[in-house]
Amino acid sequence: MKVTLNRASFMQELQTVQRAISSKTTIPILTGVKITLTQEGLTLTGSNADISIETFLSVENEKAQMQIESTGAIVLQARFFSEIIRRLPEDTFTLEVLENKQVAITSGKANFLVNGLDADNYPHLPVVESHNQMKLPVHVLTKLINETVFAVSQHESRPILTGVHFILEGNSLLAVATDSHRLSQRVIPVEQAADHFDIVIPGKSLTELSRSLTNEEEIVEISIMENQVLFKTENMYFYSRLLEGNYPDTNRLIPSSFNTEVEFSVPSFLAAIERASLLSHEGRNNIVRLSIQSDAVILYGNSPEIGKVEESLNYVASSGDPLDISFNPDYMKAALRAFGDMSIKVKFISSIRPFTLEPTEDGVQFIQLITPVRTN
Amino acid sequence: MKVTLNRASFMQELQTVQRAISSKTTIPILTGVKITLTQEGLTLTGSNADISIETFLSVENEKAQMQIESTGAIVLQARFFSEIIRRLPEDTFTLEVLENKQVAITSGKANFLVNGLDADNYPHLPVVESHNQMKLPVHVLTKLINETVFAVSQHESRPILTGVHFILEGNSLLAVATDSHRLSQRVIPVEQAADHFDIVIPGKSLTELSRSLTNEEEIVEISIMENQVLFKTENMYFYSRLLEGNYPDTNRLIPSSFNTEVEFSVPSFLAAIERASLLSHEGRNNIVRLSIQSDAVILYGNSPEIGKVEESLNYVASSGDPLDISFNPDYMKAALRAFGDMSIKVKFISSIRPFTLEPTEDGVQFIQLITPVRTN
Repeated sequence: MKVTLNRASFMQELQTVQRAISSKTTIPILTGVKITLTQEGLTLTGSNADISIETFLSVENEKAQMQIESTGAIVLQARFFSEIIRRLPEDTFTLEVLENKQVAITSGKANFLVNGLDADNYPHLPVVESHNQMKLPVHVLTKLINETVFAVSQHESRPILTGVHFILEGNSLLAVATDSHRLSQRVIPVEQAADHFDIVIPGKSLTELSRSLTNEEEIVEISIMENQVLFKTENMYFYSRLLEGNYPDTNRLIPSSFNTEVEFSVPSFLAAIERASLLSHEGRNNIVRLSIQSDAVILYGNSPEIGKVEESLNYVASSGDPLDISFNPDYMKAALRAFGDMSIKVKFISSIRPFTLEPTEDGVQFIQLITPVRTN
Repeated sequence: MKVTLNRASFMQELQTVQRAISSKTTIPILTGVKITLTQEGLTLTGSNADISIETFLSVENEKAQMQIESTGAIVLQARFFSEIIRRLPEDTFTLEVLENKQVAITSGKANFLVNGLDADNYPHLPVVESHNQMKLPVHVLTKLINETVFAVSQHESRPILTGVHFILEGNSLLAVATDSHRLSQRVIPVEQAADHFDIVIPGKSLTELSRSLTNEEEIVEISIMENQVLFKTENMYFYSRLLEGNYPDTNRLIPSSFNTEVEFSVPSFLAAIERASLLSHEGRNNIVRLSIQSDAVILYGNSPEIGKVEESLNYVASSGDPLDISFNPDYMKAALRAFGDMSIKVKFISSIRPFTLEPTEDGVQFIQLITPVRTN
């Protein structure tokens, strides 16, 4: 294997597959990046127990300036290899596999000779079947991820809750995540949903996927296999394992009738929550209190050592019974950030029942749920 | 004490004094910032065992929009206080000391009530005497610091070496630092040096000072006291303790005759050293080898596990005996970075004697010394 190519183009691909490579893996070859060179171009592969990323740089890509002298494959320690490529003196470099899996990396007058590993020992990626597929624009998929993934559980005590539950049915795709203290559920309309699926994707995989999808205008093709999902764009294959087990029925958690309702503009409500949480974070219980009265909505934060804060909130409208309710401000901050710059309705049953947050605008199927904290 | 003022102006002063405040201090009141309000304006003070910073915001500063209702002083927990100020909703805020050292912070509808500490219990800063003074432009002082401070020792085994040695004599100011493996010495001409001093300032103090001096065009007035030094600008007093003890005589360490000499352009030499150190960092000994031959200068880096690198260096000129010498590339990187974008001469005696680096340009009194590593 011998190839000369553009350093910046190669570096970009390498950074993408490095998202899947961990130096902490127990399988030594997975600390490496697999480089496969054919007459068509160069494929890079990175993997850990949960996700695998494959990118392809075509010989026809003019920016890549690729000159293939001989094809082949090798695995190189990813962290070092990328440090070396990053610091090479010229715009192009040559990669050549010599005897005994030694690899020469040459650029200008700099000559590196590094030890490679046999590409035959690198694990095989799952074979993709061509059913259970759907397509989404990148910006729609990453938005859906960011609206739900923050609510997954961070604890392995109930592994299924560390994932986001996706259900494709009819013309809609539902995504829901909950850590049993809060929940976020988003439904988006989809075209051409001939197939049906019901899967749970690890939250960490989705976070990495969202970071890897940089071109918002592209289309992602999603394929479901036995225990894997593949997200495919023009230059990247992103595989994630699926979580096994039954996701709880979250539908029954969402209440439908309420006694108190307040409408807020998200940015101003969020800023007030952030102020109140400055003090609540120091207290033994990280809680803030919201007092909804007929003519005012007041937020309280308190820390015995530091002090307290009280703020009369700006709100758009309020109706129903007066209510005092306490909750973890961190859940509220995450929920509000997922909504972004819009107006929302917060609906309450009582001070001890979960309350919901929904966009004021009709037709957006996005609901969040937060469980309050009982203070007596 | 009660004052209303501009949040951004206040925040800027607070951030400056926070450089001196550590949350790890064993003296609780030093986790706080002291706020002193007189009819002239607002003074903030932060301090730790080594440095103290005082800033002054004048009532005549129009940006500060200061409205003083009553004067006084208080100490507030610095980290929280700055978080609170940063998140207040309006452009101005009001600070009022109530009973029992409680402090009300009000902005728009947000009302904080935090616990303060008695300003009378805050340690007093040293009194400044008006002798042993000198003046320097900020950009000259920060350059002098950055050219030397990296070479101070990081270990407390010889505390005096953790500081930079400054000697003012005649019309020149000398700064020298060494950790006994490498040395950096810079001499600059100064005007009006009526006085004389010989002091050692802790490296950490100088690093903080350099970060605090943001206006390059200002003049710093330096005053030496019994065991303190004060750096004074228009709005900031920066105090540091001095290190006690005798600084070693570094003059005798600098050789004056050499057998081999190579001239390099710093940026290209630095890039090559960075490449070679990628591999040396992984080896048991972090060393690179420079081989100076009559017609080539070659740099080698090596790690048994990862691989090796060899690079024929670009150089401006070379003369004298052939030489093979090994050294820690991290010392070389730091030395080269201190020179910046210029040409330097590297002069050697033998492979076991310290070598020097000096600007090619005449008249710049800047010399660095690196001790090689014996490899056999």
